[in-house]
This record gives sequence, structure tokens and C-alpha cells, in this order.
Amino acid sequence: MRAFRLTVVIAMLVAQPVFAQRGAPAPRSPEILPDGRVTFRIAAPNATDVRLTGEFLKAPETLHKDAKGVWSATVGPVSPEIYFYQFAVDGVAMARTKLDVSGPSPRFYDVRPVAHGAVEQRWYDSKTIQGVRRAFVYTPPNYARSSERYPVLYLFHGAGGDESGWSENGRANVILDNLIADGKLKPLVVVMPYGYAYPPTSPLADGPDAMKRQRDGFSRDLIDDLIPFVQANYRVHADREHRAIAGLSLGGGQALGIGLSHTDVFSRVAGFSAALGAVTSPQAGGLDFKSLIADSKKMNDRLKLLWVGCGTEDTLFNSNKEFAQLLESSGIKHTFRVSDGAHTWQVWRRYLNEVAPLLFQ
Amino acid sequence: MRAFRLTVVIAMLVAQPVFAQRGAPAPRSPEILPDGRVTFRIAAPNATDVRLTGEFLKAPETLHKDAKGVWSATVGPVSPEIYFYQFAVDGVAMARTKLDVSGPSPRFYDVRPVAHGAVEQRWYDSKTIQGVRRAFVYTPPNYARSSERYPVLYLFHGAGGDESGWSENGRANVILDNLIADGKLKPLVVVMPYGYAYPPTSPLADGPDAMKRQRDGFSRDLIDDLIPFVQANYRVHADREHRAIAGLSLGGGQALGIGLSHTDVFSRVAGFSAALGAVTSPQAGGLDFKSLIADSKKMNDRLKLLWVGCGTEDTLFNSNKEFAQLLESSGIKHTFRVSDGAHTWQVWRRYLNEVAPLLFQ
Repeated sequence: MRAFRLTVVIAMLVAQPVFAQRGAPAPRSPEILPDGRVTFRIAAPNATDVRLTGEFLKAPETLHKDAKGVWSATVGPVSPEIYFYQFAVDGVAMARTKLDVSGPSPRFYDVRPVAHGAVEQRWYDSKTIQGVRRAFVYTPPNYARSSERYPVLYLFHGAGGDESGWSENGRANVILDNLIADGKLKPLVVVMPYGYAYPPTSPLADGPDAMKRQRDGFSRDLIDDLIPFVQANYRVHADREHRAIAGLSLGGGQALGIGLSHTDVFSRVAGFSAALGAVTSPQAGGLDFKSLIADSKKMNDRLKLLWVGCGTEDTLFNSNKEFAQLLESSGIKHTFRVSDGAHTWQVWRRYLNEVAPLLFQ
Repeated sequence: MRAFRLTVVIAMLVAQPVFAQRGAPAPRSPEILPDGRVTFRIAAPNATDVRLTGEFLKAPETLHKDAKGVWSATVGPVSPEIYFYQFAVDGVAMARTKLDVSGPSPRFYDVRPVAHGAVEQRWYDSKTIQGVRRAFVYTPPNYARSSERYPVLYLFHGAGGDESGWSENGRANVILDNLIADGKLKPLVVVMPYGYAYPPTSPLADGPDAMKRQRDGFSRDLIDDLIPFVQANYRVHADREHRAIAGLSLGGGQALGIGLSHTDVFSRVAGFSAALGAVTSPQAGGLDFKSLIADSKKMNDRLKLLWVGCGTEDTLFNSNKEFAQLLESSGIKHTFRVSDGAHTWQVWRRYLNEVAPLLFQ
């Protein structure tokens, strides 16, 4: 890790005093050991308590201080995956940080030497929101050289996230590139919008009607502004047969809520660890799924895929299970996928890898 | 800020226990007051010392604790700008965070309702690096609908950054969209690569030759791999007359070093707060600018623009001034732009806004 120190030296050379490191260089952390265990370290000579939480831990780990004031703990072995972890120094949570433990062979979300699609950041004018909004758009390999039209998936992030989440944390483009290269997926376009009609700093995100305004605003922005923008700017099929909607967590609730309310617009609907409460709560306008799906014949005729997945360690598991039971008792064809895992990107990456090939067969 | 708390509540609903907040919600921070001052707060009941550093402060500010364990300080007034700031809790630095103080009218890097270009993430195979690398590519408004060819700017980030820096922190695409909309800039394509041949975790980033290997690897990847990829995948002019190179800090050193070494490839060269040491040091192969520019007639014939800018509060100011003096004493036509400011994105956004229209007139 002399290399890292070298980079730090370069960074220090060009950093302003206000951000310059003082004293000793940061200790090496995380250090992945040959046996798969991982050592975490943080310099905090004046702290009295340092803990580590992480998606690879069942409970917070207490770190121990050495004579130089560096706290450390060794955990694991940790399986090959990308995880989030976080130190708490005297009870103050530090930034969530990624730990990437690579394995002996490429994972399904590792960049491989195959043909690559592109991820575009696009800005569109939204009449609904009365402002400019950003969406990320995945176009498959050779899109620019082709004259083909493609089906489209609208794919939503979770609470606290944004339109960059599915590419930065979900590796959506890498997963899709790999599936296409392996002949498991026909090329498609994926549109990843910003899931809040009004960002937290907006006055419109405040007040008793905020949840309903967010829900209705996002839905109208999607249907009245974003879909027309996509159809005007990308070679996509513009009919419901070629349009899917999916999302994770808050976005899963949005996908199920909007998808089942608009079967004239979408024919494929999927919720990953869906937060149904944010959609069904009275504050959000109290979307009533039961009456929404009452006409089971119409729903079954229109929906080519209805997929609901949740990990058994997820605190939302029971509400997803109840939702699947409602679908079952209402005679709605669907897949309820019960998997390992909690409310994490590990699960959502796997779900995308599993669901994408089912969308447009 | 009830809205923000509401968002936090939604986030908590869907968060796993491992990342759930405990106890009281986070205090409102930063709070921009009507008089332009800003209050920063952080809950740290067990800490004994909390400080704030920020690009709007001349020296670290000490926070004070209230009875509930919330530390706070009010600073400013702070001019409309985007700044980074950072808490240090008992000497441990927290994440660098943005403070965006908007003004009464749109700033040159604010998104306006004009025609928008796109920012694409592209992956290319690099023979030099023997792997897949990512670059960000700005295409101007209406690029997809046009059949025109465009000039290209290769634009580099600084030490510790990556290929997302110029769009995420530099707002390059927004600045260029606004300049184009205002008739101040002819449309161009901007390519923003990853500035390290080998990331810090690579064994090739280690050892005594690391700086030279990084420098040579980046230069070869740019010329042998990235430029051919761009020319094969974008409608750009493929001659030196339509090719510019620029960068900030480490990337400024790279732009000046590569640009002046390859006047057969680039006709426009600019360094923003350039870190010349990383290019000229013996470890980096000791690029000797003096002999590089010895043939002043050739350099002046070939270079249509040579622009060097640095803020007077920047620790790199003197080395940039010496470089400008070397250019002057060698008879090389150039612009040395002395500005206010330190080693910050405030300066680099302004430089891009100023330099982009000069590139291809």
C-alpha cells in the first residue's frame, strides 16, 4: 500500500491547508487478508468508543485502540461482494463507505471485456414539476450504430437515493451488458429517473400533503413528461407491450403502485423489496391495492409479468409477503420470489440479474 | 425542514436496523439564514471537541455544545457559491460535504431551461492498461439529431478525483449548455477520462517507478486507446486543429505535459491550477519543460492557445507563476491568468466558463 500513500502524498501536495491532513498518514483500511478476513482501522486518538457496522456483520463490532491512537477490528471471513460499512466514533456516524471483496472469478456485476452499452445523463423539462430534471438512461451495446427500436424498462431507486443509484451502486449497465453478451437478454433501454417529485429542500416537500404530492407528482412526471421525452429522444417502442416498470424499496412501492394503476401504459411490473407503506399510507393518498386489482381477468390479460421479490432478512419481508398473499387470494398471476438477504444492494443487483431476462422474452 | 425529517422517516422505514438512526433525528444542518449566514450543527453528545473547516472559512471554526449534545456554529455571511465543508469530531475528519448557497439569479453553472447536452458514461478497452476503462463524454444539445462533426476537448480531473468529477463537481455540462444557449460557445464534445493509469489498489500503482508508470500509462492510454475510441464512436473532427487538452491540478500538469509533448495531436492546451511537480519530478520521469519548448517558433506555429491560470491563494500559485515566466523567457505565446481564489472547484468552474469559448473560435 505504498502506492496509496504515494497518492495521498500527491493529493496533499495539491490540497489547500484547510483540507490538508495533519500528523501521521491515515492507517491502511480496509485491509483484505489472504484468508478473507478484513481489518478495519481508523485513527482517532481522542475518541473513547469506536464501532463498525456493515452489511457483512450481524451486529456492530467494537474496535480497540493501540498506543498510537489507531482503532482496529478484524472481521470475517467476508464473501466476495460489494458491501457498505460505517464507523461510529463516539456515537457519531461517519460516511457510508464501500467494501469490495473480489473473488477468484468475475461476478455477474463485474465489468468484463464484452461489448458495452452507455449510461447517459439527460436533462428534460418537466411541466409537472415546472423545472429541469435529470434521468440516467442505459442504451445497449451498438445502440448508436443500429436503427433498431428497443423495449424500455423504467427503473427506480430507493428512499434517500437518486437517479445515479442503479448505475453507481446497482451496476445495472454492467449486469445488462453481461447478460446481453451471454445471450441471456435481448437488448433494451433502461431509464432511471429521480424518484422524488420535490427534493427534500423544496417547500413542496413539506407539510401534511407532502407524501401525496410526492407520489402524484412523481407519477405524473413519469407519464406526462419523462416517457414522452424518452420516446422523442430514443429509438424505443412506444406501446405498453414494450414498456416495463420496476424499482427497489421506495421505488418498488412506486413501481407496483404506478404499474398496477396504469396497465394501459405498462405490461411488466416488478417490485424489489418494495416499501408498500409509502404508497398505501393515508398520507400518500392511500392507494388501495385490493380494489385496484379487483378485476383479476383484466389484470391477468394485461400484465405479462408481475414480479414481487423480498429477502427474508428484510424488515419489509412481512409486508411483501402479505402483498403476495393479496395477489394470490385475488387470483392475480404473479411471481413471489423469496430470497436470502436483507435490504441491500446485494439483493437488488441479484434481482435485476434475474428479472431483466424475464421482462421481454 | 419538516420535509427533510419526513424523508428521514421514510428512509428509516425502509432501512435495515444496522444502518438505522438511533435516538433523536439529526439536527437541521446546514441552515442558511435570511441574512446569508449559515448555521452548522452536528449531534455528538460524547465528543469533547468539534471543528468545522470549509472553503468559505479562513481558519477552522470551533463549535459549541448545547445541553442536548448538539454542537453548532454560525458563520458568514457566505456568498452564493457551492463549497465543500467538513466536520472534525475529536480530531476525526467526517465526509467532505457540499454547501450550496444559491443567489437571487441563476449562476453560470446553474441548470437553466435551455437546450441540454448529455453526459455519457462510456467503457472502452485499453490495450495500454489491459483492461476496461470508463470515460465521461459530454455531447452538446441536438448532437443525436445532427450530422455535424464537432471539435473535442479532453478534460482531466485532479488528484484523488475521478472521471465523474468535472460533471458532478465542475458542472461542465451545465456551464457548456449555458454558454451555447447564450451564443458564446460553438458546440463541442468534451471527453473526461480517469486520470490514473492504475488505481491506488493496483500493484502497478506501487513501487519506486509508480509515478513514471502512472504518467506514461495515462499518456499512452489517452493517445493510443481513448482518442481512437472517441473518433470511432463520436462525430468529431479527427485532426489536431480540432483537438484541445485541459485539466485541473494533477490533470493540469497532465494537460500541459502531454499537450506540449504532443503538439502533433493537440493545438489547444490549458492548465487550471496545474500541479507541475507531479509531471516534472524525477519520479515522474522528469519531464523537462524547458527543452520541450526550446523550439519556440515551432511551438508558436502549432499552438493556437496556451492558457495557464492559477488563483493567488493557491499553494501552487508560485510554481504556476514560474512556469509562466519560463514560457515568457522562452518566447512562447501564452496567457497567464492570475485570479482570486484557492485550489477549489469555484476557481475551476470559472476557468472552464472562461476558457471554453477561447478554444475553437
